[in-house]
Amino acid sequence: MSATAKPAPVFALDQSKITRDPFPNSRKVYVQGSRPSVRVAMREIRLSPTMSGDVAEPNPPITVYDTSGPYTDPAIEIDVRRGAPPVRIEWIRERGDIEESDASVSAFARERSADLALAAVRFPRVRRILRAKPGRCVTQMHYARRGMITPEMEYIAIRENQRRDEAVEDLKRQHPGVDWDARIPSHITPEFVSDEVARGRAIIPANVNHPEIEPIIIGRNFLVKINANIGNSAVSSSIEDEVEKMVWAIRWGADTVMDLSTGENIHETREWIVRNSPVPIGTVPIYQALEKVGGRPEELTWELFRDTLIEQAEQGVDYFTIHAGVLLRFIPLTANRVTGIVSRGGSIMAKWCLAHHRESFLYTHWDDICAIMAAYDVAFSIGDGLRPGSIADANDAAQFAELKVQGELTRRAWKFDVQVMNEGPGHIPMHMIKENVEKQLEWCGEAPFYTLGPLVTDISPGYDHYSSGIGAAMIGWYGTALLCYVTPKEHLGLPDKHDVREGVVTYKIAAHAADLAKGHPGAQIRDNAISKARFEFRWEDQFNLALDPERARSFHDATLPAAGAKLAHFCSMCGPKFCSMEITQQLRKYAAEHGVNADAAREEGLREMSEKFLAEGAEIYHAP
Amino acid sequence: MSATAKPAPVFALDQSKITRDPFPNSRKVYVQGSRPSVRVAMREIRLSPTMSGDVAEPNPPITVYDTSGPYTDPAIEIDVRRGAPPVRIEWIRERGDIEESDASVSAFARERSADLALAAVRFPRVRRILRAKPGRCVTQMHYARRGMITPEMEYIAIRENQRRDEAVEDLKRQHPGVDWDARIPSHITPEFVSDEVARGRAIIPANVNHPEIEPIIIGRNFLVKINANIGNSAVSSSIEDEVEKMVWAIRWGADTVMDLSTGENIHETREWIVRNSPVPIGTVPIYQALEKVGGRPEELTWELFRDTLIEQAEQGVDYFTIHAGVLLRFIPLTANRVTGIVSRGGSIMAKWCLAHHRESFLYTHWDDICAIMAAYDVAFSIGDGLRPGSIADANDAAQFAELKVQGELTRRAWKFDVQVMNEGPGHIPMHMIKENVEKQLEWCGEAPFYTLGPLVTDISPGYDHYSSGIGAAMIGWYGTALLCYVTPKEHLGLPDKHDVREGVVTYKIAAHAADLAKGHPGAQIRDNAISKARFEFRWEDQFNLALDPERARSFHDATLPAAGAKLAHFCSMCGPKFCSMEITQQLRKYAAEHGVNADAAREEGLREMSEKFLAEGAEIYHAP
Repeated sequence: MSATAKPAPVFALDQSKITRDPFPNSRKVYVQGSRPSVRVAMREIRLSPTMSGDVAEPNPPITVYDTSGPYTDPAIEIDVRRGAPPVRIEWIRERGDIEESDASVSAFARERSADLALAAVRFPRVRRILRAKPGRCVTQMHYARRGMITPEMEYIAIRENQRRDEAVEDLKRQHPGVDWDARIPSHITPEFVSDEVARGRAIIPANVNHPEIEPIIIGRNFLVKINANIGNSAVSSSIEDEVEKMVWAIRWGADTVMDLSTGENIHETREWIVRNSPVPIGTVPIYQALEKVGGRPEELTWELFRDTLIEQAEQGVDYFTIHAGVLLRFIPLTANRVTGIVSRGGSIMAKWCLAHHRESFLYTHWDDICAIMAAYDVAFSIGDGLRPGSIADANDAAQFAELKVQGELTRRAWKFDVQVMNEGPGHIPMHMIKENVEKQLEWCGEAPFYTLGPLVTDISPGYDHYSSGIGAAMIGWYGTALLCYVTPKEHLGLPDKHDVREGVVTYKIAAHAADLAKGHPGAQIRDNAISKARFEFRWEDQFNLALDPERARSFHDATLPAAGAKLAHFCSMCGPKFCSMEITQQLRKYAAEHGVNADAAREEGLREMSEKFLAEGAEIYHAP
Repeated sequence: MSATAKPAPVFALDQSKITRDPFPNSRKVYVQGSRPSVRVAMREIRLSPTMSGDVAEPNPPITVYDTSGPYTDPAIEIDVRRGAPPVRIEWIRERGDIEESDASVSAFARERSADLALAAVRFPRVRRILRAKPGRCVTQMHYARRGMITPEMEYIAIRENQRRDEAVEDLKRQHPGVDWDARIPSHITPEFVSDEVARGRAIIPANVNHPEIEPIIIGRNFLVKINANIGNSAVSSSIEDEVEKMVWAIRWGADTVMDLSTGENIHETREWIVRNSPVPIGTVPIYQALEKVGGRPEELTWELFRDTLIEQAEQGVDYFTIHAGVLLRFIPLTANRVTGIVSRGGSIMAKWCLAHHRESFLYTHWDDICAIMAAYDVAFSIGDGLRPGSIADANDAAQFAELKVQGELTRRAWKFDVQVMNEGPGHIPMHMIKENVEKQLEWCGEAPFYTLGPLVTDISPGYDHYSSGIGAAMIGWYGTALLCYVTPKEHLGLPDKHDVREGVVTYKIAAHAADLAKGHPGAQIRDNAISKARFEFRWEDQFNLALDPERARSFHDATLPAAGAKLAHFCSMCGPKFCSMEITQQLRKYAAEHGVNADAAREEGLREMSEKFLAEGAEIYHAP
């Protein structure tokens, strides 16, 4: 690797590339917690009133979960050379369990900072490195197990509730869900957050070196979250493009972002991303470790990997994917597979294991790794290196053998109070999805499940965000806590900005569909609001309540661009005479004028009302 | 309605607009049945060999279901002014139960053909009209119930089998599915087809006036099918655009096409579409009836509707959506809904019922309608006029009240030997989808279910093909036989060509995912083939086996356009050093060279082999 190739001068950084537009008719609101620094960001969408003749009946604004951070708040000045506001820094420091240092423990990091040639690509702000004092553990799980309510937990409780207690009437208008023995309370308290983290059923990825994050929680008793992958590669990208990719992904709804960079200046690129990210950042450290040995897996060593972990932990990475479940004896189980090993990390470690004929250092040094994670509060995302890469290989012996080991590793990590989630497949036909969740819950002690799709067929290249979205929605319903997005470019090429948006928005749909199916309290409020707007021809509100308001509007305007069409009681699909909603409205008006009372129908019972309607109707209605 | 407005002169018809390109590396093959005219069209995709060093091991071609008709066969001359080849005409005539006439029974049709001003937009080929001789019934159900095997049934049996008996080894490599008590045989015989049609569990939409169709079957013991909607509207479109829309939709995989035109020259447009369509065409006759009364539902009459049914049956429409289940007493049940009545047909009939305070003529004249259907073999698609248009309204009293009536109407139609399917929702959260299928199967005597989506959330305008695709895949798995596509423009505007392709391909994914989950025999063959190609870096094969080869190729080429990249053992996603598949291949090669036998692992049992592998390994492997 040529570490200093093609440096992009910082002064050329084009900050206008960073997307900052607020969403239409939306404003950033902050719900105040118990202390000034707990200010929980949400997005409020203002709606227009419902018109009945000349009477305007106001529609309350809708509060939605907001992952976009400071970028959509016009009141906040953004300078990517300074990074996002370090909202957590006071919380971290006041716990008194960390030490701060100017010197990196990582040899690689020291080498990079000493390299003058890298000045041009280096994040310019100097920052002290935080780590646990000797003998201390600084994980949210550690605090939770001691019964502490951290500001992070309070923040999360407020955030998860999304002010839904203010919408009591709306809350009632929701289907009871089927939650497969999840335990979702109607109101999330900080104590509940703490309890879920303590028992390992949820994680709060929050490295002490990443004070910029607005805390989130990942667990099946909370809203389903989604992850977007970004990263440069051997082929393309620049630093400002990478930062904007992160900003772009969280704008559309990514709750976490994984930086999967494998190209040049990984170390420096990561610093830019972490410093500017209000969401947790995940990585797969083995990728960088492999870069360091010139792409030859057999040359990887524990010492090198350890240095890489510390390097990234010091930068503030919030969770690490580590493929420690790939054991030597599992490798032959993949021999008759149609697609062998499809996880990059898994194949790297399999090659190492075979070459050395030993269990991987990830497995043998697990306790050492746990100690590092505990010192920075990096959460594990235990990789599924043997996940199936095709329908044929779904739920096979190799996959489930590894999953059992993931469970063993989870329990070992918990002894160190280290937070854990488990990664899952992959490619699975619909009828075999549920088994994955059931086994994971059982074998991994209900640690949060984090799945890639799964794709429900292999024949959809170009549309794999779609075939994986089917699987994602279902597995989210069954209990997966975090869904890793798949873009339309999966299996084919590197996603561009359009693909990232497509992947994020569609996975937001899958996650939300899962919340609805689980009966997550308040999940239906936005659906009800948009449907009411649709029925009342409040087009602007319909666009603004959509997950992607820009696209909704542009699709509408493609046929009916005139401003007047936004007031019209029809759209181009059916035209004015055939609009069922318009006819229904006429019908309701007619019924109201002629004395047919809708509420009465409810109260008196439906069957009775039908008869009454028929009986009364004979007098009420006259053929025109 | 101004019937003669803006006629498009026929001589200006631009036939170059009709898409005729065959799919890459594919050829049209015909499987010969028991008589010369039974030639069943399929598409065969040729694959390149697997290379092991210099040894080329051939990969057998893959046969796929082909809905595209003559348009993708370069050997067939297409002239849209003549129409598609009338492949069924001899079969229809030889049954001896029809009479042929030059005169239409429909007054409206006679009026249109007498209108000289319409000559310019009229389909130019003169055609005799077929109908049952007095006292005869010409439906496939009628024949089936008499134990007949029609050529249509034989065609379908061959088509459904897709030559999978030639792929015995591939058939074994498939997961057993979960089919919810469906009865899918491993080999489809003409007798099985006949039996399923006889008991009403499947339909063969095949109007005697539509000899151009290549017969298909819709039923839950057969491959899941998809429908695409096309149609002009008050806003746009020309005749050649409409024909091309049909050709375009079947190119990407639509098994049936509904013509939902509501604009000018509906009658003439429909003739063009039917004459050129090798797939069944469905309509909603009430739309045209409403046009005839200037868009005023209350002015609709049975006589006018009857004439419309005959007009369309004479043209060859294969199935009619008829919203006869909207009863007067159900209308108040929609009063407290969030989105009222969202079916166009449903709202039209509801308005009629209220205005006249009578049950609709669709319901009261059901037997008369059945008699018409029986005389042409038009199948019913009993509409769900009260389907929910929002998550809030899912599975409510109005919806299920109508579904029960759909069951009653189904049984009445079956007395006339008329084929029936039932339409279903709509907007349903995931956990409430299954109940729809269960109730439909029970209440409607297992008649095929035909659903629109369902959308699993309301907040996805611009992506409703996606949120509905989640529901479609699931409901297809549970037993729905025909999935009506939804395009990205749903709720917003009129789909263009891009949207139609997007809708069809994505619904093909949903249908195929359902087939896989049901364990439909042979469904996994294509998945296995594409995954094998992927693992072996046969990029061209991977593109060609995709549902949308063009898009797969273009997405790949967006990052790596060079021809050499199609031979590369990596793609731009991970680059050369990080390709897990490449590493796995190296690993397998290494294991093979060092004596680790994959097959042995299988035979000796996985656990034992793992131990042996470890034991032997100590001798075999040496650290580099």
